Amino acid sequence: MEKIKVGIVGGTGFTAGELIRILLYHPNVEISFVTSQSLQGEFVSDVHKDLFGETTLKFENLAQPADMIFLCLPHGESKNWLIENEKRIAPETKIIDLGNDFRVDEEWNDKKFIYGLSEFNKEKIVKASYIANPGCFATAIQLGILPILKQEKIEKIQCVGITGSTGAGKALHQSLNFNWRNDNISPYKTFTHQHIAEIEKSISLISETKTEINFIPWRGDFTRGIFVSLMMESNLSQAEIEEIYKYAYKYSKFVFVSASPIDLKQVVNTNKAVVYIEKVGKNLAIHVAIDNLLKGASGQAIQNMNLMFGFDEKSGLNLKPSVF
Amino acid sequence: MEKIKVGIVGGTGFTAGELIRILLYHPNVEISFVTSQSLQGEFVSDVHKDLFGETTLKFENLAQPADMIFLCLPHGESKNWLIENEKRIAPETKIIDLGNDFRVDEEWNDKKFIYGLSEFNKEKIVKASYIANPGCFATAIQLGILPILKQEKIEKIQCVGITGSTGAGKALHQSLNFNWRNDNISPYKTFTHQHIAEIEKSISLISETKTEINFIPWRGDFTRGIFVSLMMESNLSQAEIEEIYKYAYKYSKFVFVSASPIDLKQVVNTNKAVVYIEKVGKNLAIHVAIDNLLKGASGQAIQNMNLMFGFDEKSGLNLKPSVF
Amino acid sequence: MEKIKVGIVGGTGFTAGELIRILLYHPNVEISFVTSQSLQGEFVSDVHKDLFGETTLKFENLAQPADMIFLCLPHGESKNWLIENEKRIAPETKIIDLGNDFRVDEEWNDKKFIYGLSEFNKEKIVKASYIANPGCFATAIQLGILPILKQEKIEKIQCVGITGSTGAGKALHQSLNFNWRNDNISPYKTFTHQHIAEIEKSISLISETKTEINFIPWRGDFTRGIFVSLMMESNLSQAEIEEIYKYAYKYSKFVFVSASPIDLKQVVNTNKAVVYIEKVGKNLAIHVAIDNLLKGASGQAIQNMNLMFGFDEKSGLNLKPSVF
Amino acid sequence: MEKIKVGIVGGTGFTAGELIRILLYHPNVEISFVTSQSLQGEFVSDVHKDLFGETTLKFENLAQPADMIFLCLPHGESKNWLIENEKRIAPETKIIDLGNDFRVDEEWNDKKFIYGLSEFNKEKIVKASYIANPGCFATAIQLGILPILKQEKIEKIQCVGITGSTGAGKALHQSLNFNWRNDNISPYKTFTHQHIAEIEKSISLISETKTEINFIPWRGDFTRGIFVSLMMESNLSQAEIEEIYKYAYKYSKFVFVSASPIDLKQVVNTNKAVVYIEKVGKNLAIHVAIDNLLKGASGQAIQNMNLMFGFDEKSGLNLKPSVF
Repeated sequence: MEKIKVGIVGGTGFTAGELIRILLYHPNVEISFVTSQSLQGEFVSDVHKDLFGETTLKFENLAQPADMIFLCLPHGESKNWLIENEKRIAPETKIIDLGNDFRVDEEWNDKKFIYGLSEFNKEKIVKASYIANPGCFATAIQLGILPILKQEKIEKIQCVGITGSTGAGKALHQSLNFNWRNDNISPYKTFTHQHIAEIEKSISLISETKTEINFIPWRGDFTRGIFVSLMMESNLSQAEIEEIYKYAYKYSKFVFVSASPIDLKQVVNTNKAVVYIEKVGKNLAIHVAIDNLLKGASGQAIQNMNLMFGFDEKSGLNLKPSVF
Repeated sequence: MEKIKVGIVGGTGFTAGELIRILLYHPNVEISFVTSQSLQGEFVSDVHKDLFGETTLKFENLAQPADMIFLCLPHGESKNWLIENEKRIAPETKIIDLGNDFRVDEEWNDKKFIYGLSEFNKEKIVKASYIANPGCFATAIQLGILPILKQEKIEKIQCVGITGSTGAGKALHQSLNFNWRNDNISPYKTFTHQHIAEIEKSISLISETKTEINFIPWRGDFTRGIFVSLMMESNLSQAEIEEIYKYAYKYSKFVFVSASPIDLKQVVNTNKAVVYIEKVGKNLAIHVAIDNLLKGASGQAIQNMNLMFGFDEKSGLNLKPSVF
Repeated sequence: MEKIKVGIVGGTGFTAGELIRILLYHPNVEISFVTSQSLQGEFVSDVHKDLFGETTLKFENLAQPADMIFLCLPHGESKNWLIENEKRIAPETKIIDLGNDFRVDEEWNDKKFIYGLSEFNKEKIVKASYIANPGCFATAIQLGILPILKQEKIEKIQCVGITGSTGAGKALHQSLNFNWRNDNISPYKTFTHQHIAEIEKSISLISETKTEINFIPWRGDFTRGIFVSLMMESNLSQAEIEEIYKYAYKYSKFVFVSASPIDLKQVVNTNKAVVYIEKVGKNLAIHVAIDNLLKGASGQAIQNMNLMFGFDEKSGLNLKPSVF
Repeated sequence: MEKIKVGIVGGTGFTAGELIRILLYHPNVEISFVTSQSLQGEFVSDVHKDLFGETTLKFENLAQPADMIFLCLPHGESKNWLIENEKRIAPETKIIDLGNDFRVDEEWNDKKFIYGLSEFNKEKIVKASYIANPGCFATAIQLGILPILKQEKIEKIQCVGITGSTGAGKALHQSLNFNWRNDNISPYKTFTHQHIAEIEKSISLISETKTEINFIPWRGDFTRGIFVSLMMESNLSQAEIEEIYKYAYKYSKFVFVSASPIDLKQVVNTNKAVVYIEKVGKNLAIHVAIDNLLKGASGQAIQNMNLMFGFDEKSGLNLKPSVF
């Protein structure tokens, strides 16, 4: 089978690195180019040092012709890039934006970006040319609440989530200082995390009721993964709720409802999500674990690419878990 | 000044170890004995290896005469010990139980155990002969909610808390397996943690309203510390709430209301608690950090002892933070 | 292409888990059976919980017919298993033993076990029916010293190596207690590690001189990986030595000589090894990093299987690094 | 007893923070000032956040009169500071430099700096006005080798040492990036670490033989502590060597020869060192563990101050270990 040509714009960051790691061994794909303005001409494996011996790709200055382009730019810069490169991109080139530029405002000029949460949007993704790839916390939280919100009105949901340090990206700042972060826990952006907007938008599409999400993110003392515990009141029984979730993810290749307690490392270094449901009295807890860089970013992006091009949804994503 | 004689019953576990570490350099105290049924005759520093060079104490089989005895037995065994040792203990000997036997049911035979949360119970502690030392999560949560519950009716509070591995004690089981726990997060006892009972009892003493506490504990991938984030709705302003908390802890030697975001390592290896308050709209978040083995167990026990004997409340508790 | 049938004997441990994780997506292989005497009939994914959703395999009591069997038994039990199962195993079934039973004493009954260090033994492995898979530290150390020992007489080599906790296997004991191991370093088996024997045997095959290996292993506070630093005196220049190593690994698919300093996480969750050479005066340092469970165990075993069956040496081993 | 006045120059870094943490509760000392040119007027507890509630000290621009000044400046800047502040410092003010300016070249202008390794230099320290405080790795290595080098000629010693991240100081750079450092091991400055010079100087004072030290430092994935394993050949028996070390540290308050295997966390957050000796054949291994910021820096500095002023050598240094 002929392979599609894929390019990555903004190739030095973490999400780009993860894309390259997966795409190098994706059976339907050939990496056509990886751009970096600051490191043009340097080996990709000089930045992503684990790729030493895996690839001799070099960073290029500009995007090249491709069937599929992943934008891995800082939040807010995808629009600028699209304007500047309008003439370089063939109209048939498909684009997945891993930034947050088009997650809430999907319409932009003549382009319509489809929200790439495939578990709830697969029909549109399959036909899409432009995808806004969901945020990492937004993915975990939505996988945890959308199934029940389709079935039951819930006014308010409380959530605490914890993220690995890779969620903070590559730029060095104090919250990434090993001296500080090792063995530490700290909250940030209490009730004001930017991912709430895309979650609320998704809810508005499936329910007439507004659901308030109170979300406190914590910085965790590990590198990979997101774990969220969601609390709400429900009139449904545990069995009914489990039925709803099993049905919602019946055909999912990556999301699994667990019958026993879950932990974060079940999914680290995979594109999987695990969901665990507990009900005590009227109080419902839903726990979700994902890898923030995979199901929460680059893995999900490739899952979307697979759907857009009619590849097996798991193509390239049969990843060995690290587990330990 | 003459030193009081202090004994520790059940000397091999973590809370006993912490007591010994502090008491060795407590200016008003002399360690009279440390018991262990299984390790009688062995050096205390063979079990608590960091004490090598600090003490030549050996474990004894039975309690000896003392002014103060700390019970560091498995939960549920303190009562048995008291029955079995009734004749060995002089009536004037004061007792602090670090287990959970008397936290909710304070009356037992002729003894009345006072709940040892000194920030809210100091007057009784000062006069007490028997203290039920609070649980670790219970301490963090109560320091976070009791001040506002004294002032405002709040029906429901959601809480996620994370604990270091020392909270699980010394016995080896799978949740303490380094292979599993390192870099991992996992929930346990969702909505059913045993500390809820003592929290609800404390609330019942200060408020006529019942407040429901929905608490999800997580196992953290660090050894020391507890961090809790509490969520509730409040009609008070952030300024009013901060005022309430500053007033509540005005004379506290160990609890501090922080004006800037807090993190767990600010208090690790100290008897301190830090509290941080955030309000967005009607939603209130209160974050609390303590060291689970100190303010959450042995440090608080010594603080109670200091109060019971009229020592400086900080005596022996001016601990160098480890910070890093 | 028809797939070979592969079985795993002793399927609950770490090396078995890693084999399963890789074999599930190995294009030339079908897992025929996984045995466990204690867990017969249970789902493999109940033990290796990250495989939830990946496989519905159950543990079987006995080995079944297969083209290839991996023995993942405790050290010393492979011989017993071979005796007990002699009649169940077809003579054409190939066997790779991940234990240490046949690493030094290769001849056993009518069987000859070939030492499976493919970088130095590929010709024999390709034709072998029985493989003794090298130990984890032994792999790292040999990759670091065999090239130079072929060229230069070196009397004595000093080595400190550090291993992740998975090296200690699955059984729970104090050295795996998170409370103790987190943030800790400790030496063990100073100068007496069992892997020295297989290293000395390899040296004896390539050099007439005996080289003394003084090896101190440390327990590390991480789960995956081995890092060794080897010190020796050499009369060769840094350039000459680098040339020797580049030549030795010129055709290797997994071992790479790095031009810049290396770190452990470059290879974690891959079958790769990286080697870094430094010379100051007459003193030579050679640093090697591998993943103890992959290049140091299960990955190397599959590499050997690939060679034995004429598959692409990298088949199934294009693993996404976890990096972080 | 009247307290001496102590000042700290360069108060924002890690060694200064540790000094303040200890000095706040040192019974013979009053902190007179802490300087910082960039943060003049700010609260010390805004930088060292764990000190929130412990002190209301503010950073000052200039040194004030004091009995004792600790210099916590970047390596190489102590000399400049002494020149610039010559007129501000009273001649009777004692000085301990925690930098490396005077460790090898002790004579400077009219001042003679005494090397502050009290276990081998106590007589001079007691009378000294100026102390060059030893480096962290230098302290661990010297405690491990000086006793035997006094007794036996040893030509060559190999050493691998691992350091916590606080050894790299406070400035943020890539080796302190949590994403990279967590669960990672990496060597640096192989055979060229700057502490070798001060070790060789100490050896030259006790032995006519030159001993070559081959030292490879590793960056560890923890924050506090140094662990070194030293390898050498010895003609003495294990019992003889243990005797030598026990004698050497017989009166030491902080250095202990352990009869059983040691680990790093035995000494973390204390001023202690533990030494463990193993001999197999002619090969000798000596393991040493210290806290890099305490016995390896600020704790040792205070120990030196105690000796210089005739205080109890342990004054202020009865620190509760963090252990876990």
